[in-house]
Amino acid sequence: MTKKKVVVQEVGLRDGLQSIPQIMPTEAKKAWIDAAYNAGIRHIEVASFVPPRLLPQMADAEQVVAHALTLPELRVTALVPNLRGAENALKAGVHRVVAPISISEQHSLANVRKTPDAMIEEFQRMRELRDSESAWAQTTVVAGLSTVFGCPFQGYVPEQDVCRIVLKALDAGADVIALGDTTGHATPRHVGRLLQLLSSVIEGKVTSLHFHDTRGMALANTVVALDYGIREFDSSLAGLGGCPNAPGATGNVATEDLVYMLQSMGFETGIDLRRLVESRDILKRAVPDAPLYGYIAREGILDGSVPQQLSSHGVQS
Amino acid sequence: MTKKKVVVQEVGLRDGLQSIPQIMPTEAKKAWIDAAYNAGIRHIEVASFVPPRLLPQMADAEQVVAHALTLPELRVTALVPNLRGAENALKAGVHRVVAPISISEQHSLANVRKTPDAMIEEFQRMRELRDSESAWAQTTVVAGLSTVFGCPFQGYVPEQDVCRIVLKALDAGADVIALGDTTGHATPRHVGRLLQLLSSVIEGKVTSLHFHDTRGMALANTVVALDYGIREFDSSLAGLGGCPNAPGATGNVATEDLVYMLQSMGFETGIDLRRLVESRDILKRAVPDAPLYGYIAREGILDGSVPQQLSSHGVQS
Repeated sequence: MTKKKVVVQEVGLRDGLQSIPQIMPTEAKKAWIDAAYNAGIRHIEVASFVPPRLLPQMADAEQVVAHALTLPELRVTALVPNLRGAENALKAGVHRVVAPISISEQHSLANVRKTPDAMIEEFQRMRELRDSESAWAQTTVVAGLSTVFGCPFQGYVPEQDVCRIVLKALDAGADVIALGDTTGHATPRHVGRLLQLLSSVIEGKVTSLHFHDTRGMALANTVVALDYGIREFDSSLAGLGGCPNAPGATGNVATEDLVYMLQSMGFETGIDLRRLVESRDILKRAVPDAPLYGYIAREGILDGSVPQQLSSHGVQS
Repeated sequence: MTKKKVVVQEVGLRDGLQSIPQIMPTEAKKAWIDAAYNAGIRHIEVASFVPPRLLPQMADAEQVVAHALTLPELRVTALVPNLRGAENALKAGVHRVVAPISISEQHSLANVRKTPDAMIEEFQRMRELRDSESAWAQTTVVAGLSTVFGCPFQGYVPEQDVCRIVLKALDAGADVIALGDTTGHATPRHVGRLLQLLSSVIEGKVTSLHFHDTRGMALANTVVALDYGIREFDSSLAGLGGCPNAPGATGNVATEDLVYMLQSMGFETGIDLRRLVESRDILKRAVPDAPLYGYIAREGILDGSVPQQLSSHGVQS
């Protein structure tokens, strides 16, 4: 029996750290990447290439990327809010650049100081830049759509707006589309409806989902997304995270809880949950004031746990 | 368009209160019942009929039931761990008696000091008692199975053990079966597998599910249970709860979060979420030391919320 694989991308180093006031030292970031890697994580969004004056937390992006690239088979992603950032990230050698494209105009202006349509134009320039150097041919250009399920400013985000931006992002050259629930508005049926709609428009292009657990819906949403064939999810160790330009957003879903659920459902993540939980110690030491979340870390991993015993009873998919 | 209805049964007055050291005054219990009723809740498990020396928190069960019965259309349930308790509950006039029948022998011994099979025999005597008086003919006898998805003592609970007890409980005269994840072991695929298995054995007899959010899986589990046609769920206001004889168990899933999710999915609960959240004030005043949980209460209800706007866009099921 082979299990279905699911990719869990750790985004705490970017989405988590950008939302807390304390700056994590570069050495601690490297230690975090190493610990995640040693726990089996093979996809990490390690940094955001933004001007240090806007986000001092990310001033060491190049060094962090350089370290991450030393780890075999680690897929290294960076967020790039503009062309300059994309150029720096491409030069640094990342495997994937993600451009944050908000569906909500107000959120887009707050987050990247561009309208969604202006951001699509910037995104097209990023794609053209990627194509301009053969050395970058293997770098994936991701349209990271944000406020897909709701916006702290405008509230409801119409599904037709999402469709419009998705189609424009593909026209502009997106290799793949990632959907972000930036502020935890998503609910299970909304996730199902939107994925159904998008799959009929652009089958196979939406590859990953990014849930925040603001209203406790992240894992329920994940169950629905799995039903719709999504096999890549973002999460943050200890639920670290949020969005500095989105009032009310709390952290991403905790990586430990997501991995626990996925494993219990028979999915192969390649991740050692115990090592993952132990890696929280790095956060406790390096950013002691940041609130840490997560059910599994609190309750402990069940010894001879239900997931493993279930899987020996044939619960595999 | 008619929405599908889902019953949310508030169990905080029983499962919640039995797990905290502070005793809630009878008047506060009545106020809680009134507030829940005014928020639209029509199913409440109001008490447990146990000897007061074992559970002083429930010494006022008769008074609490008497008050609940004054509210029109409120369906009043009581937990009854033995025949004596069932007799008292029937005499008090409850609409449903629930007998806690553990699948796990160790948990059963800790909880009711009987093996599962001995508890089934007791349950059969409860059913016979119910049948002995025409005045009680309308009272539903529920087999409330506990540790269905795992046990703090034995760990994994085999599905064949659940099947065996379900069949014995039906033989013993259960009108319906409720499945309890007493200590938050359940995970989405486990829920789906067990409901699939049981539906092929005893279609239509499993009517409700009872999840604890110990490991953060309760809402994800609920999504799966909804897929399998379950339309009744237990929950506790503010996630109050646990099980005194199950180490590590934290509260039931928070009623507010469950209702939020169900409404966002287009289900009709009849519950006013704002009033429900406001009713937490009763707990803050009456049991100030009890930890209160819940995402929706923390984040606030979205004004012009996504669920309502979505439902005006036709999200109904």
